[in-house]
Amino acid sequence: MRAVDIIIKKRDKLELTGDEIRYFVNGYTSGEITDYQAAAWAMAVLLNGMNDRETTDLTMAMAESGEILDLSDVTPMVVDKHSTGGVGDKTTLSVLPIVAACGLPCGKMSGRGLGFSGGTLDKLESIPGYRVNLSTAEFKDQLRRIGIVLTGQSADLAPADGKFYALRDVTGTVQSIPLIAASIMSKKIAGGANCIVLDVKVGHGAFMKNQDEARQLARAMRGIGELAGRKTLAVLSNMDQPLGFAVGNALELVEAIEILRGGGPADFREHVLRSVEEMLTISGAAPSNAAARQAALNVISNGSALEKLLQLVAAQGGDPDVIVHPERLPRASLIESVKAAQSGYISQINARVIGEAAVALGGGRARKSDQIDHAVGFIIPRKVGDKVEKGDVLFEVHANDPAKLAQARREGLSAFAFSPSPVDPLPLFFED
Amino acid sequence: MRAVDIIIKKRDKLELTGDEIRYFVNGYTSGEITDYQAAAWAMAVLLNGMNDRETTDLTMAMAESGEILDLSDVTPMVVDKHSTGGVGDKTTLSVLPIVAACGLPCGKMSGRGLGFSGGTLDKLESIPGYRVNLSTAEFKDQLRRIGIVLTGQSADLAPADGKFYALRDVTGTVQSIPLIAASIMSKKIAGGANCIVLDVKVGHGAFMKNQDEARQLARAMRGIGELAGRKTLAVLSNMDQPLGFAVGNALELVEAIEILRGGGPADFREHVLRSVEEMLTISGAAPSNAAARQAALNVISNGSALEKLLQLVAAQGGDPDVIVHPERLPRASLIESVKAAQSGYISQINARVIGEAAVALGGGRARKSDQIDHAVGFIIPRKVGDKVEKGDVLFEVHANDPAKLAQARREGLSAFAFSPSPVDPLPLFFED
Repeated sequence: MRAVDIIIKKRDKLELTGDEIRYFVNGYTSGEITDYQAAAWAMAVLLNGMNDRETTDLTMAMAESGEILDLSDVTPMVVDKHSTGGVGDKTTLSVLPIVAACGLPCGKMSGRGLGFSGGTLDKLESIPGYRVNLSTAEFKDQLRRIGIVLTGQSADLAPADGKFYALRDVTGTVQSIPLIAASIMSKKIAGGANCIVLDVKVGHGAFMKNQDEARQLARAMRGIGELAGRKTLAVLSNMDQPLGFAVGNALELVEAIEILRGGGPADFREHVLRSVEEMLTISGAAPSNAAARQAALNVISNGSALEKLLQLVAAQGGDPDVIVHPERLPRASLIESVKAAQSGYISQINARVIGEAAVALGGGRARKSDQIDHAVGFIIPRKVGDKVEKGDVLFEVHANDPAKLAQARREGLSAFAFSPSPVDPLPLFFED
Repeated sequence: MRAVDIIIKKRDKLELTGDEIRYFVNGYTSGEITDYQAAAWAMAVLLNGMNDRETTDLTMAMAESGEILDLSDVTPMVVDKHSTGGVGDKTTLSVLPIVAACGLPCGKMSGRGLGFSGGTLDKLESIPGYRVNLSTAEFKDQLRRIGIVLTGQSADLAPADGKFYALRDVTGTVQSIPLIAASIMSKKIAGGANCIVLDVKVGHGAFMKNQDEARQLARAMRGIGELAGRKTLAVLSNMDQPLGFAVGNALELVEAIEILRGGGPADFREHVLRSVEEMLTISGAAPSNAAARQAALNVISNGSALEKLLQLVAAQGGDPDVIVHPERLPRASLIESVKAAQSGYISQINARVIGEAAVALGGGRARKSDQIDHAVGFIIPRKVGDKVEKGDVLFEVHANDPAKLAQARREGLSAFAFSPSPVDPLPLFFED
């Protein structure tokens, strides 16, 4: 078998066999197949596509390129969730403690921010001392002891995916449904998941810009799940405006804590409860969505969900006191309330613009090597459809630099659009 | 400007600007743009195409990536020819001396064999001492002195093309009409040509398998010529069976010498005369094809074409005596005549099979580093349409190894097909 023949086969729109896909993935992982051959192949896949069988073979080859976590001695049913990334999406920070408090052990490996989209690891690192580099042994031990783990992706899991992803980023081959689906699913499968709940985000602040693309991605991932024998469920959710009010690392952590205290913005709270429902029912831990929701509300109101977060933070070396006293989290030196210059109904809060403005404040990375400022960001206690009067507060900017504050004020305002007549609120979820 | 954005633009089927194409070619030549980015880009070009303007900009960017030869002080009109490569195609070896003997100075840079297709340089190196690595100064001096040069491609000319070509070979991106056209034309333009005669070969023994592809390539190269201000003419010629009788380096040189002595196989002779006609008329050195042909026949019959070849060989360090006494050229130790096992009309002599069998004999390279055996090859004094009786000689194998001889006998026979009823001869040229 030769790499160039496999490239030519896909170039000519032919279906690759499982052996060919494994040969290519293993060869690329070991370095026998070069970056330039993988780049040509990825472009051919992007332009000519892959069917479900090929995509599943690619997923499994990438999952099997490294260690596959076996958690069967810790919990009989391993459930994982994945969001395709958005602005203000701190869902995991609330969902995991609730699910664990409901009695379903839940260990998860999360990622860092990518472009305008935030990352769970960056948010967690707002907590002084919190470690995101647990070993496999630490991961399993902690999951067994307290039923909750939230750490970074181990380099031993799906190393082929990491190598392909870095290459795709610089060769214009990111936007391929089969390659995105295989990348996501290979990491979940390598992480040992039996059940996978996927949140495919759609809109300005998501990588999928329209419902059609998002449905294709959801369909591709369900196809992989079916062929790979993993229970897989995908929901489509709106990402035209930020989720919740907070955008920025420590600010989002505070908002996630509010949910565990029974508060938090209505849209984010609903999003969290829906995610918990899906995780508890798909894994068989709850008989129905209604029962799952009731269980979630119980562990919030009796404090055990918040207690689970405290246990998690303490177990991973963080200071649990900042969870009890969030005012002790990193806080920006400059906080400005920005007011509406006109009255009307809010018709847009462009999540992409807000996400990029948060990166520019220092809350994300323009380059991989950039340091993150955990304190900065936005609080936007407004939603599309809200009526505002001139002079009402539209949003707060949290900054550590006057010039960046001024820029964030301008960019924040440019994300808003107004209508003189009433505007419907945006849906939280889309029908799939 | 960023390489990845240029890749994405072509991926999304958008037209690239001249600036973008120059940025990419120059960046790749200098090493700022990586092999893997160039590979992804080449695959996007292969699958999404390029229009004439883009292809011309690519051609000129590759031509301008190195020195552009200026021969205006040597000859007012620089004419060059290019064949897309075939089996038994020794046309340049006869055409150049004839054209030069007709009074049109003609300096040409040729290539080596590629896969099943032979190369002019390899054939020339059958001559002991012949140098194919002239410097630019030597090239110009010799062209001025004797009006004829036949050497290798200088590494200073179109270095971008050399780099792209090596990459395309291992990334499945060779078979792209715009990339092939730009590669050929960039070298001709860098070589200083004002007029370019292109011989696009079609059939089993050519890289273009059907007339439709060949016409597209011819059209693309004429389009480049028009936009780049070079007079360009392309003919389509048949490459289903070998051109002439000889396949193999020294064997082909002998056949090319026969033409200059007034002999040679009819098909090859006609091909040579047609090429001379086109070169003399496109450059204005002859008023019509008929006048050009008469001039060619004159310099053959008065011996001045052969004399020009002797001057060329002597000027480039070769032993001219082997031209006068071709029996002194490298000669194989084993020569076997292979006979027809049946009577009938020859319906096929598959040029690809013969070309690959000649490579296996040692006449070509399986790897770039392989040494060539100049003596080996085939003499096939047969053409499609010929009637043969059982026991007639079909071809001769020239070999230096008994096992390779046996293999070549088998493969040579497998190239033939026979019909019980008469078969039309193959056309030499196709209408364009």
